[in-house]
Amino acid sequence: MINVGVIGVGMIGQDHIRRLTHVLSGARVAGVADVDLDRASAVAAGLHEGRVFESGEKLIADAGVDAVVVTSWGPTHEAYVLAAIAAGKPVFCEKPLASTADACSRIIDAEVATGRRLVQVGFMRRYDAQYRAMKSAVHSGEIGAPLLMHAAHRNPSVPPHFTSDMIINDSAVHDIDVARWMFDDEIASVAVLKPRQNRKAAAGLDDPLVLLLEMSGGVLVDVEVMLNAAFGYDIRGEVVCEDGVVELSESAGVVVKSAGRYAGRVPADWRERFVRAFDVEFQEWLDDVAAGAEPTGPSSWDGYAATVVCDTGLAALHGGGREPVLLREQPALYRRGAVSR
Amino acid sequence: MINVGVIGVGMIGQDHIRRLTHVLSGARVAGVADVDLDRASAVAAGLHEGRVFESGEKLIADAGVDAVVVTSWGPTHEAYVLAAIAAGKPVFCEKPLASTADACSRIIDAEVATGRRLVQVGFMRRYDAQYRAMKSAVHSGEIGAPLLMHAAHRNPSVPPHFTSDMIINDSAVHDIDVARWMFDDEIASVAVLKPRQNRKAAAGLDDPLVLLLEMSGGVLVDVEVMLNAAFGYDIRGEVVCEDGVVELSESAGVVVKSAGRYAGRVPADWRERFVRAFDVEFQEWLDDVAAGAEPTGPSSWDGYAATVVCDTGLAALHGGGREPVLLREQPALYRRGAVSR
Amino acid sequence: MINVGVIGVGMIGQDHIRRLTHVLSGARVAGVADVDLDRASAVAAGLHEGRVFESGEKLIADAGVDAVVVTSWGPTHEAYVLAAIAAGKPVFCEKPLASTADACSRIIDAEVATGRRLVQVGFMRRYDAQYRAMKSAVHSGEIGAPLLMHAAHRNPSVPPHFTSDMIINDSAVHDIDVARWMFDDEIASVAVLKPRQNRKAAAGLDDPLVLLLEMSGGVLVDVEVMLNAAFGYDIRGEVVCEDGVVELSESAGVVVKSAGRYAGRVPADWRERFVRAFDVEFQEWLDDVAAGAEPTGPSSWDGYAATVVCDTGLAALHGGGREPVLLREQPALYRRGAVSR
Amino acid sequence: MINVGVIGVGMIGQDHIRRLTHVLSGARVAGVADVDLDRASAVAAGLHEGRVFESGEKLIADAGVDAVVVTSWGPTHEAYVLAAIAAGKPVFCEKPLASTADACSRIIDAEVATGRRLVQVGFMRRYDAQYRAMKSAVHSGEIGAPLLMHAAHRNPSVPPHFTSDMIINDSAVHDIDVARWMFDDEIASVAVLKPRQNRKAAAGLDDPLVLLLEMSGGVLVDVEVMLNAAFGYDIRGEVVCEDGVVELSESAGVVVKSAGRYAGRVPADWRERFVRAFDVEFQEWLDDVAAGAEPTGPSSWDGYAATVVCDTGLAALHGGGREPVLLREQPALYRRGAVSR
Repeated sequence: MINVGVIGVGMIGQDHIRRLTHVLSGARVAGVADVDLDRASAVAAGLHEGRVFESGEKLIADAGVDAVVVTSWGPTHEAYVLAAIAAGKPVFCEKPLASTADACSRIIDAEVATGRRLVQVGFMRRYDAQYRAMKSAVHSGEIGAPLLMHAAHRNPSVPPHFTSDMIINDSAVHDIDVARWMFDDEIASVAVLKPRQNRKAAAGLDDPLVLLLEMSGGVLVDVEVMLNAAFGYDIRGEVVCEDGVVELSESAGVVVKSAGRYAGRVPADWRERFVRAFDVEFQEWLDDVAAGAEPTGPSSWDGYAATVVCDTGLAALHGGGREPVLLREQPALYRRGAVSR
Repeated sequence: MINVGVIGVGMIGQDHIRRLTHVLSGARVAGVADVDLDRASAVAAGLHEGRVFESGEKLIADAGVDAVVVTSWGPTHEAYVLAAIAAGKPVFCEKPLASTADACSRIIDAEVATGRRLVQVGFMRRYDAQYRAMKSAVHSGEIGAPLLMHAAHRNPSVPPHFTSDMIINDSAVHDIDVARWMFDDEIASVAVLKPRQNRKAAAGLDDPLVLLLEMSGGVLVDVEVMLNAAFGYDIRGEVVCEDGVVELSESAGVVVKSAGRYAGRVPADWRERFVRAFDVEFQEWLDDVAAGAEPTGPSSWDGYAATVVCDTGLAALHGGGREPVLLREQPALYRRGAVSR
Repeated sequence: MINVGVIGVGMIGQDHIRRLTHVLSGARVAGVADVDLDRASAVAAGLHEGRVFESGEKLIADAGVDAVVVTSWGPTHEAYVLAAIAAGKPVFCEKPLASTADACSRIIDAEVATGRRLVQVGFMRRYDAQYRAMKSAVHSGEIGAPLLMHAAHRNPSVPPHFTSDMIINDSAVHDIDVARWMFDDEIASVAVLKPRQNRKAAAGLDDPLVLLLEMSGGVLVDVEVMLNAAFGYDIRGEVVCEDGVVELSESAGVVVKSAGRYAGRVPADWRERFVRAFDVEFQEWLDDVAAGAEPTGPSSWDGYAATVVCDTGLAALHGGGREPVLLREQPALYRRGAVSR
Repeated sequence: MINVGVIGVGMIGQDHIRRLTHVLSGARVAGVADVDLDRASAVAAGLHEGRVFESGEKLIADAGVDAVVVTSWGPTHEAYVLAAIAAGKPVFCEKPLASTADACSRIIDAEVATGRRLVQVGFMRRYDAQYRAMKSAVHSGEIGAPLLMHAAHRNPSVPPHFTSDMIINDSAVHDIDVARWMFDDEIASVAVLKPRQNRKAAAGLDDPLVLLLEMSGGVLVDVEVMLNAAFGYDIRGEVVCEDGVVELSESAGVVVKSAGRYAGRVPADWRERFVRAFDVEFQEWLDDVAAGAEPTGPSSWDGYAATVVCDTGLAALHGGGREPVLLREQPALYRRGAVSR
């Protein structure tokens, strides 16, 4: 039984606590910390034997905590992840790994200095059954080498304060990670296009956007991001290879025929669409931790690269041209095999 | 240019005239006849050079008529088809070939006496692209021998005067012909089941019904017929073979995502669903006629067998048990090859 | 943390132990028993703190066991379930509840005497997301009352010793339970049809079979069961209602286009198809147990009724006619609400 | 009966002759002309009463020719279309309308001078049932205003002499016309991207390409064109609107389950995919001609605009940047209503 400490018990943190407590196997939430101590206490009260820590640092340092989940406010991630590395404890950090590329880079340095991976970043799409089947088909050799990927990321709506920068940093970041993972390759350049605006988009919000990601190996990825799609949460993906294509299908479920139509359900939100991916993501992380193994999921390098690509995307969004992605040299610790999980 | 004479210019007859005149190639409607002379005159007025005949018999006898289409009231079919055979002219007769099995049998005798096929019966499903692809898959040898067929025949609604007998004679007759054609085999017995009744069914109408058709070779075909389905015209079919299955897909068309659903269209009626099948059926008949060849479509024997199976179905409907289908010996003229078209 | 004891650690038992230990939350396998003590010891050795009991009865009686899972040989179920009832402990019993209707009836009597439900039977399809969505659509009122259900249950293959009786008892029993649950209604009669036999079926195996289940309310359910389907594990279902239909869709997953085809995966076996249903089934049972509540899943009555319907199906299989299902009066303990879960 | 003269009887010309003669209604091929007189004679010999003309000009001038079909070599189109306009005869010209924008412009001038439309250009996709349903959905108002269109145009293979310029002029030209027609709007700019090359592409062939078309109203259209797709002829389209999306579905047809897969057919080539569109295109043109009405299909303006956009695409392909589309002022003759057919 792994004793997990959770830092940051807002909506996401509480959802992960629910998952660790009521859904998954092999873990116990041993303690929580939050900038809002009352909230931390309230959440801890709902746990079987969960303690409240005064700070994330104390939680990390406590001998009763085997592994750490960081779901606090983004700008605080760096300090907690560094502390976990210093303590030699496995840490699962929700995206972003840190607020800036420099901060991510400092985490890389610290982790590399320990000689082993301790950090996993929360890019859950890699754990979705359809994305995994897609990657498997792409790398099967049965349909040739990949040439293009078409993707769409449609949210029914966003809060009024959502900005164009957040479209890149909070939404497209998932597609950016998928592209890197799907092709086991880095993104070489980013361009951003602004189609006609959705009338429901708040003033100043460039919705929808289209990102053009050029992979180092020449694969071109186009990503439509539309955050006021109204009709549902619709994630599309199609990889075009030399001899065939592979695409995500509509969500399974029953088909109802009525009133002149046959119809199936479009997921209402990301929770519905990716609920299983989150479960699998955490279970695999817990299994790695329980085995005393390095995490096999998204690494500090993945968190760093995603942040750099997002920064490049922002430059492209504001500058209007195609911007090259400039990454530091990749430490050997993060070198992936031919086909990562 | 084939000069076609049309006997019976009600709704179906007019639709075939439209088809011969405005859609298909190689034919001209040279004349019409109808029990209602005024209606015949009105329809003829819309033709380029169409004449009105006082009677079907005179139309058939006229030298300016090369081939005959019979779309009159069912009980009159026998006389017109026999007259066309006597005149040695190709005749396309809408189903039923004749009102009774005996009448069909007399047509068979007359045709056999001429030594060649002159009659084609209007079972249009055999010309539907999906049914043809299904038959091709069943006989391809790639999925083993057929064992079962599941079918459904759903109409949005029927007129108030529709009776349970008409469910067999007018609706299920198409499924009966499909079963015989799909497996190149005769139906050996029929049973009829009465599930719970649709609240929209008129008093005394057994709607829906399920027919169980046992083919001579052992294939079992179940057919749901529901005539108050409300949501559209929905024709389903699935053939289960030893190593695989083949099924009709939903109608092609665009898929629209809106309001939490992805959705496609269900045809509104049989016209929409089978419009192309009717066109192909007539074009192939015209091509056979133009080539001076015997018709390759459904024969007098097919019309006879369908009528006998319908009669058997009525006996089963009213008697409640499984009824054997008793057919006369099949004349050599109608013997089909391994896989008919 | 619920301490679960598992009686019978064959393939199914071990799979449930894996589930309780490595997948689900809130349970610990505290002990095992098996007629083969060596096997029990070997399995226990793989557990964290699992004990081996000399007999199922001792396991049930042990104070360290909170709840019991019975996955032993069918004929032993009755004794273990009765013992668990006598001990007042929740018991999850894989189907069949017991080998005979009389044995099931004795379990009902014992459970009723305690005044509360303790027994849950393992009909996992009720926990499948698609079946649940189908039931929800049927009872939504949006497509009218149900009239018919078409179902198919196709296994790629079965072991050589599989008999026609096992097609009913081991395979169709799932479809029988689905029919009862889908319509919240009992099956009133059963008929069995034998279509042409699959050439791969062993001598004497009536494969495929078609079951016709008539519900008390008039809904007619036809079930194709084919156990040598070769191409995969294919579970089909379509409920026809007065104003619309609802059907299970193909398994979700990626679609690959290559070599002239677009294609998706058919599950390889029941494990792949229903893996999530098993997980949900057990998690909900554990949650009920943890809450100290009566189980909300399939009851002793459901196990009894399924057994009686199977017996009736065997009579129909061997007798050839339509056989009425004769059930004892249903105790109030098992009376369901309008729409059960 | 319309007497049609066909100029150019190569593969396409012969296919249209087949269509006019054996498929469609209301037309007769009265004469043919071809630069290869022997070929023209051979084709005419297969007609009922078809004459051979020494030149396209003589065919056009002949009193026995009511309407003209131009399917000759592209560079000869201008002269024939101008001659037909001068003769006041309806002319159907396969794409391209003419080889250069200037030539197209001269045709426009000549047609405008006559005060009525005589010319129709062969963009057959406008007659495809799915594209029509898509346009209808886009303009229905039910899913909001259009913002984006994603399209793909995949050919299984191309001849060795195929060049990158031909990808634009011969393949993408159809997508260019679809974009203009779908949104009743002109294309304002074109950019071309070169993803990783398909290994099967001949040296120097930029295959695949991605075109980015920006409509005047702000809709952004991305078009993947891949001409060595190997697996089939795959035309994809999805229009993203403010409140929903509409997409082309896979080709209808049967679904076969075998060997672990459910699968449907991808069309083998453009003939299979668009055979009906060609038929409908010609039948509607013939119906317009028969009615003495101006053609309702793609106009000289559409032919001109497509040519200008292709020229712009070539500039973008060779220049690498985004190129503006510069059109002459549109004559009133070609002004479309809110939603054209």
